[in-house]
Amino acid sequence: KSGTRVAPYAGMPTLLAAPHRAIDPEAPDFGDLQVAMLGVPMDLGVTNRTGSRFGPRALRGIERIGPYNHVLQAAPLAELRVADIGDVPFRSRFSLDLSHEDIEAHLGKIVGAGVAPLSVGGDHSISLPILKALGKDRPVGMIHIDAHCDTSGGFDQTKFHHGGPFRQAVLEGVLDPKRTIQIGIRGSSEFLWEFSYDSGMTVIHAEELGGLGMAAVIERARSVVGDGPTYVSFDIDSLDPAFAPGTGTPEIGGLTTREAQELLRGLKGLDIVGGDVVEVAPQYDSTTNTAQAGAQMLFEILSLMVFSPSIGSRR
Amino acid sequence: KSGTRVAPYAGMPTLLAAPHRAIDPEAPDFGDLQVAMLGVPMDLGVTNRTGSRFGPRALRGIERIGPYNHVLQAAPLAELRVADIGDVPFRSRFSLDLSHEDIEAHLGKIVGAGVAPLSVGGDHSISLPILKALGKDRPVGMIHIDAHCDTSGGFDQTKFHHGGPFRQAVLEGVLDPKRTIQIGIRGSSEFLWEFSYDSGMTVIHAEELGGLGMAAVIERARSVVGDGPTYVSFDIDSLDPAFAPGTGTPEIGGLTTREAQELLRGLKGLDIVGGDVVEVAPQYDSTTNTAQAGAQMLFEILSLMVFSPSIGSRR
Amino acid sequence: KSGTRVAPYAGMPTLLAAPHRAIDPEAPDFGDLQVAMLGVPMDLGVTNRTGSRFGPRALRGIERIGPYNHVLQAAPLAELRVADIGDVPFRSRFSLDLSHEDIEAHLGKIVGAGVAPLSVGGDHSISLPILKALGKDRPVGMIHIDAHCDTSGGFDQTKFHHGGPFRQAVLEGVLDPKRTIQIGIRGSSEFLWEFSYDSGMTVIHAEELGGLGMAAVIERARSVVGDGPTYVSFDIDSLDPAFAPGTGTPEIGGLTTREAQELLRGLKGLDIVGGDVVEVAPQYDSTTNTAQAGAQMLFEILSLMVFSPSIGSRR
Amino acid sequence: KSGTRVAPYAGMPTLLAAPHRAIDPEAPDFGDLQVAMLGVPMDLGVTNRTGSRFGPRALRGIERIGPYNHVLQAAPLAELRVADIGDVPFRSRFSLDLSHEDIEAHLGKIVGAGVAPLSVGGDHSISLPILKALGKDRPVGMIHIDAHCDTSGGFDQTKFHHGGPFRQAVLEGVLDPKRTIQIGIRGSSEFLWEFSYDSGMTVIHAEELGGLGMAAVIERARSVVGDGPTYVSFDIDSLDPAFAPGTGTPEIGGLTTREAQELLRGLKGLDIVGGDVVEVAPQYDSTTNTAQAGAQMLFEILSLMVFSPSIGSRR
Amino acid sequence: KSGTRVAPYAGMPTLLAAPHRAIDPEAPDFGDLQVAMLGVPMDLGVTNRTGSRFGPRALRGIERIGPYNHVLQAAPLAELRVADIGDVPFRSRFSLDLSHEDIEAHLGKIVGAGVAPLSVGGDHSISLPILKALGKDRPVGMIHIDAHCDTSGGFDQTKFHHGGPFRQAVLEGVLDPKRTIQIGIRGSSEFLWEFSYDSGMTVIHAEELGGLGMAAVIERARSVVGDGPTYVSFDIDSLDPAFAPGTGTPEIGGLTTREAQELLRGLKGLDIVGGDVVEVAPQYDSTTNTAQAGAQMLFEILSLMVFSPSIGSRR
Amino acid sequence: KSGTRVAPYAGMPTLLAAPHRAIDPEAPDFGDLQVAMLGVPMDLGVTNRTGSRFGPRALRGIERIGPYNHVLQAAPLAELRVADIGDVPFRSRFSLDLSHEDIEAHLGKIVGAGVAPLSVGGDHSISLPILKALGKDRPVGMIHIDAHCDTSGGFDQTKFHHGGPFRQAVLEGVLDPKRTIQIGIRGSSEFLWEFSYDSGMTVIHAEELGGLGMAAVIERARSVVGDGPTYVSFDIDSLDPAFAPGTGTPEIGGLTTREAQELLRGLKGLDIVGGDVVEVAPQYDSTTNTAQAGAQMLFEILSLMVFSPSIGSRR
Repeated sequence: KSGTRVAPYAGMPTLLAAPHRAIDPEAPDFGDLQVAMLGVPMDLGVTNRTGSRFGPRALRGIERIGPYNHVLQAAPLAELRVADIGDVPFRSRFSLDLSHEDIEAHLGKIVGAGVAPLSVGGDHSISLPILKALGKDRPVGMIHIDAHCDTSGGFDQTKFHHGGPFRQAVLEGVLDPKRTIQIGIRGSSEFLWEFSYDSGMTVIHAEELGGLGMAAVIERARSVVGDGPTYVSFDIDSLDPAFAPGTGTPEIGGLTTREAQELLRGLKGLDIVGGDVVEVAPQYDSTTNTAQAGAQMLFEILSLMVFSPSIGSRR
Repeated sequence: KSGTRVAPYAGMPTLLAAPHRAIDPEAPDFGDLQVAMLGVPMDLGVTNRTGSRFGPRALRGIERIGPYNHVLQAAPLAELRVADIGDVPFRSRFSLDLSHEDIEAHLGKIVGAGVAPLSVGGDHSISLPILKALGKDRPVGMIHIDAHCDTSGGFDQTKFHHGGPFRQAVLEGVLDPKRTIQIGIRGSSEFLWEFSYDSGMTVIHAEELGGLGMAAVIERARSVVGDGPTYVSFDIDSLDPAFAPGTGTPEIGGLTTREAQELLRGLKGLDIVGGDVVEVAPQYDSTTNTAQAGAQMLFEILSLMVFSPSIGSRR
Repeated sequence: KSGTRVAPYAGMPTLLAAPHRAIDPEAPDFGDLQVAMLGVPMDLGVTNRTGSRFGPRALRGIERIGPYNHVLQAAPLAELRVADIGDVPFRSRFSLDLSHEDIEAHLGKIVGAGVAPLSVGGDHSISLPILKALGKDRPVGMIHIDAHCDTSGGFDQTKFHHGGPFRQAVLEGVLDPKRTIQIGIRGSSEFLWEFSYDSGMTVIHAEELGGLGMAAVIERARSVVGDGPTYVSFDIDSLDPAFAPGTGTPEIGGLTTREAQELLRGLKGLDIVGGDVVEVAPQYDSTTNTAQAGAQMLFEILSLMVFSPSIGSRR
Repeated sequence: KSGTRVAPYAGMPTLLAAPHRAIDPEAPDFGDLQVAMLGVPMDLGVTNRTGSRFGPRALRGIERIGPYNHVLQAAPLAELRVADIGDVPFRSRFSLDLSHEDIEAHLGKIVGAGVAPLSVGGDHSISLPILKALGKDRPVGMIHIDAHCDTSGGFDQTKFHHGGPFRQAVLEGVLDPKRTIQIGIRGSSEFLWEFSYDSGMTVIHAEELGGLGMAAVIERARSVVGDGPTYVSFDIDSLDPAFAPGTGTPEIGGLTTREAQELLRGLKGLDIVGGDVVEVAPQYDSTTNTAQAGAQMLFEILSLMVFSPSIGSRR
Repeated sequence: KSGTRVAPYAGMPTLLAAPHRAIDPEAPDFGDLQVAMLGVPMDLGVTNRTGSRFGPRALRGIERIGPYNHVLQAAPLAELRVADIGDVPFRSRFSLDLSHEDIEAHLGKIVGAGVAPLSVGGDHSISLPILKALGKDRPVGMIHIDAHCDTSGGFDQTKFHHGGPFRQAVLEGVLDPKRTIQIGIRGSSEFLWEFSYDSGMTVIHAEELGGLGMAAVIERARSVVGDGPTYVSFDIDSLDPAFAPGTGTPEIGGLTTREAQELLRGLKGLDIVGGDVVEVAPQYDSTTNTAQAGAQMLFEILSLMVFSPSIGSRR
Repeated sequence: KSGTRVAPYAGMPTLLAAPHRAIDPEAPDFGDLQVAMLGVPMDLGVTNRTGSRFGPRALRGIERIGPYNHVLQAAPLAELRVADIGDVPFRSRFSLDLSHEDIEAHLGKIVGAGVAPLSVGGDHSISLPILKALGKDRPVGMIHIDAHCDTSGGFDQTKFHHGGPFRQAVLEGVLDPKRTIQIGIRGSSEFLWEFSYDSGMTVIHAEELGGLGMAAVIERARSVVGDGPTYVSFDIDSLDPAFAPGTGTPEIGGLTTREAQELLRGLKGLDIVGGDVVEVAPQYDSTTNTAQAGAQMLFEILSLMVFSPSIGSRR
């Protein structure tokens, strides 16, 4: 009967129940943080159902994720200096273009301070300005888990929509397509994603997963990104809607959470320099399953950071 | 046991089960329509919860509204030549400014053809371009039922957000503030709405309704707009969230549906030249109550059009 | 700290937590029951959304209704010999006609044993066979609280749908239209209900309630039914969908629960011989509010039975 | 930034966003259609939870299915002349028997015009009259994906309930049991389905799928139906309720959507002459996952039709 | 277009978007706070449906309450030094008795520092230890808005359940029953609340509200509490379930939000020394209406504190 | 068309539609029952989300489970003398300690009468007093399917919370850890479960299931428990939240229902002496999927009892 534990539903809601560290955007002081978790509540890039602007708030409200990752054997909140630093400040909730500038500027400060960013979207378009901050000096590789390649071109007067961030990132020179793998791809828009193939990305479709086996997929992913700096981008719609209904462009035939966890855990030791979990739209999440899965995936990526040569305590 | 009726859940979903009439935006032919019902699936102007881009689709899915309005003694689908003409075509789902241009252009064609528009939003910012089309030649009056005055100024780099259409409409000269009444106002933003008072609009707060009685409110509304051309704008958040939870900026302490119906029905005989029902966001509408109420309010406004000197068959 | 109470969520679910009394339909023994509560899980008569076949099950699952009605000053489960006798047995879940026969037969046994029936639907068409059982020897009067008059004629090859039971009941001679009042009427089908007026029923629309005041409505109801035998039929769609979303033909602009309770409680002392609560469709009731309201209305009617000369202990 | 695409939430809702073609039931003109998609909003045959009468409306409301099936390498809306022709007209929403007659008559016209029908239920009983139209001249084979064999006999006074259409179809001579395979079978009613075995159908239970592997199941299915005319009937309850909760007789232990897609896609090149997706009951579908899955399965079957010798453009 | 506002969905969630001030329970430093808002996530005292332990988290997640109360003409976050100080620390989430001790101890520190507490429950039993802290030196009066009197005696081995806090508070000498008014009372447990009458509390039932009129009720409330120190306790189940379904012991026939706001706003100028909003159970709140109403009621009470002689800036 | 079947939604709700047998706790008469199904509506031991006190009521409300288990080839309601005997009577709904005493006492009577108990929780802490009753004379083995080992020590002043029943059961000598296997384990609390390993339990994590294959897991389970008396405890959170969202401590990456059924069915012939299904919290179960899965698992365990040497008819 010894000891009291803080109940999971008590206290101020933060990402993964990490300590909150308030950051003055004008004069940011990140102290000795190794990892900054942050929210990017912006969904102006969605092509269909909106709502992921509430994603950060939804993930902060989830209780009981962590502290211990027994598969990776890590307790990341204890082993890393990590905080929830709040949300990217935006000049306008109405402008997709300005929002991308604001994300890039804010992430630039984080990255510039030598802190690894772990972001919660928002829609997937946010990965472009994040990569522009992270890859400013050299392109990064990427493990991209998603139902969609997100490499289509511009339409409807913009190239900043959530269907194309990784084309732009390659064109901007911040993402190395040869060191990029996209896993879980499906849906009805394959014709929009020629850029993935043309630029040399590796694409693994959802319907291939059963045949390949997850061990082979992991091996492929590790081989593609090698030991260079690598970004992990997890779009919640990579999961089947049964596991994650709360998202804007759901596609049936997706990953189970068990598969996704196995995949992420297989990345231990890679040189992860940042990551994100995007597209959680709580309006469509009547069971909170989606936010629950999103928070757990955030925890898996944070756990990987313990073992990242660029970040972790066990490098 | 005589006769078969079409079941309300059968057939192609249209607004109020009206006939659908396809319109070529390039060469629109409205035939002899008196009233065009249309969708305006655009919610880029919202300040908080998104989702009303799905409003037209939600209202089309509601069954069993009409045919007969026994209080107004009208059967508008039979007494008016009216159709669901589909949605405003947009050049971009990402740009608020372009969307407003597109709405104004499309509505201009409808109005130019002498057809009265009855629109389903979308967020409330759509009323600005609609009014610009309707009031091009002379400013119109307005009966505005809402929780918010929507007369605040620009911020976050735009003046086209859903909190300010009626300020802009006055400044553009298409809305006559002296002939404008705003009913149901409440919430915590009164300080943003000085323009309503300064420009001469009549404002009736939700907390005044009980004391005044609805008959007096109706009398006031009729007196404010007089017999000039009048627009009816119904924001679903005028209703209390108990009656209409599915909206982006809910405010408790609102109207009941019975009050709102009484109010609308009290406008019989006014010179109504157009109307809208806006801000239905079905993501937050687990019971479909909000879409149900929105569809019924649409029916009430359409019923009023039967008696409008500018439109109806009983002028 | 004295005493233990049974928790409301414990034990076998029955209507109003009344004792269950199993009845053999072939050789029914009602003992000395004064009131039999029963389920009539049949919704083949609905014209739109189905689901009220689950109404009895939904009401049995509601906890915390009763024991004491402080307005009527009655504790009906203690003051009446009452039980939940289960559901009407049906020969077929597919045939509306056979179902009506089965209801009439089963109710005939209850009524024949001198027991007052208090039924839970099921759709409103069930009131016809119930009235045929109750009014076999002489027509009864009725206080009918509903959004719809339910006096339309046959269509779609049947006269047994839920839109017409009270026309049939009058035509069968089991319901006295002069002693019938219909309260809460609204919606868009007034043109179907001429029979109500032609036969001499009293109709009070929802939009009249505010002007009349509930006291006057109660007075009217008492005057219409007088001191003859009277049935109370409560269609849950009489309530506004804000209060009761879980029903098949919702109509906005309806009664509040406070109004409905005031109305029912105003009937104290009338010679109530039976009653029903119908049209609860739990599929559309994400908050359980509708079943909660239905169970409470059942309790109000049961409370009235304490004071009914034909039934109660305080006659 | 070139080009504008129609947003998936815009415009009139139709099945798979296909063009709507209005059909006069009295004098149907199908033009040069190859495939007619249609709704059959009838659920009078259900044995338990109702609601699939709203299935067609639910599937029409789903956005973002198609246009390209990259596994089958087909763009069916472009490669086939296909339309949403609306719903089967019914004489009565209350009579199961009449409804079956009406379905058979309407489908007879479609089939008679040489158009392949792709229907959306409604409950599974609709497959009987569809098969009677399709198999009038010679029995067809069937690939039947379902939790239940639906070959039980009559009870509750009818043989037209949704638990028995395929027994009747065999007895009517319109379905060839030797060329019929039933996949995904489970639940607690095996004792009702002796007819499947006795008549020579091939039955594959859900619990066998893991052991067999989907490739073997596909091989078995292809072998059973051979190259004769084949119907594809997809009951949404074949999917596990985690993937498709919105249905009337859910059975745990079912297929994943990934399995179901793999299975359907394995049928490429078969001589498919018609198909259906049935039992989507949106009342139980709080996430819209079920309608989403149903619409995608409809798309998979339509994609198969591109390759069907009897229908497609690539025969 | 001038200026940027923080979007309501951005940033760390706190009560009413107030600044968070972390408090060390061992050595609390409240600085110059006038009002401390805090969470009390404890629901071990409920008699039926649990869940209000998630109440503080639910209210922190609500966006867009405040800043300006135009009826009271107050901007409380600007006019008072107020913070969200987090939650009461508990030794055990399993013990009702210990939890009450912990609440009393923590509140004692707040009150001892001269700070007015404004608490968010948790179940209503929390008001007892709060009152013990607030009334330690002299009993306080109370305006109690609730469906239930909460003055019943002990049962099930405890007197600390949520049905009896105000009996205990009187018996402990910390609540003055003569200066206590209970408003909105209804339900089926009147027989348990004799203590209210015996001790001299004023009780106003929900069914009396229409007849009395809210102005008279307010007058009565002001007269009962006079100008002595007064506590305001708002149980969300005072509202009708249509307005607040998310609570553990719902009772139909309750207050509308408009009535509740009018009532609270009528208390301007009273000597309010503390308050609470309790019984929000988000599990039953599929629309978030209940948390929305709870947050607004919290804002109304905070607004009153601006005018309280003991607290506010305008004393 | 022969014969009538009772519709699954008709009649009094009982567990698995078994006959109800009322038991007087003071003088229990179990007649010749072989198996007693009962509810244990107590959730005071939960560490996070509450609500499983409504678990028994939720499972009683599920329709259409059974009668025939075609994999096990059993019709347990026909082959066993089994009844729903209602719920454990509790002295207090507020005390975890007393509740455990009450459960142990009531179960003691059942076990003492030679009846095998099959319980529905309630939270998992109920398994401790059940095991104390069942293992009083000799420790039993256990097949424990769960996301959590539930072998942690005391904290928050109690050892009776739902995270530790099986540690206590071993320490009390009623559970044989060498004959205990725990399957499906995952989450972030592995560090709390050293007791499982130290005491000799066999632990199989969820992430191992794919690699091992279910056949091997079954073999392992059978080998661990051997032919001694064995308890089967099924925590619904063993299932992935996609399959069972309605539970208090969900963990992604869990079992599918197909896996869980295969596992349970693999236990045929073991000497099962009792079982439970726990942690169904219907508040979080918007689709009823969780209760559906729970009821089916209850049916699987009951089916196993047919073949248990200690219980069944086919021993």
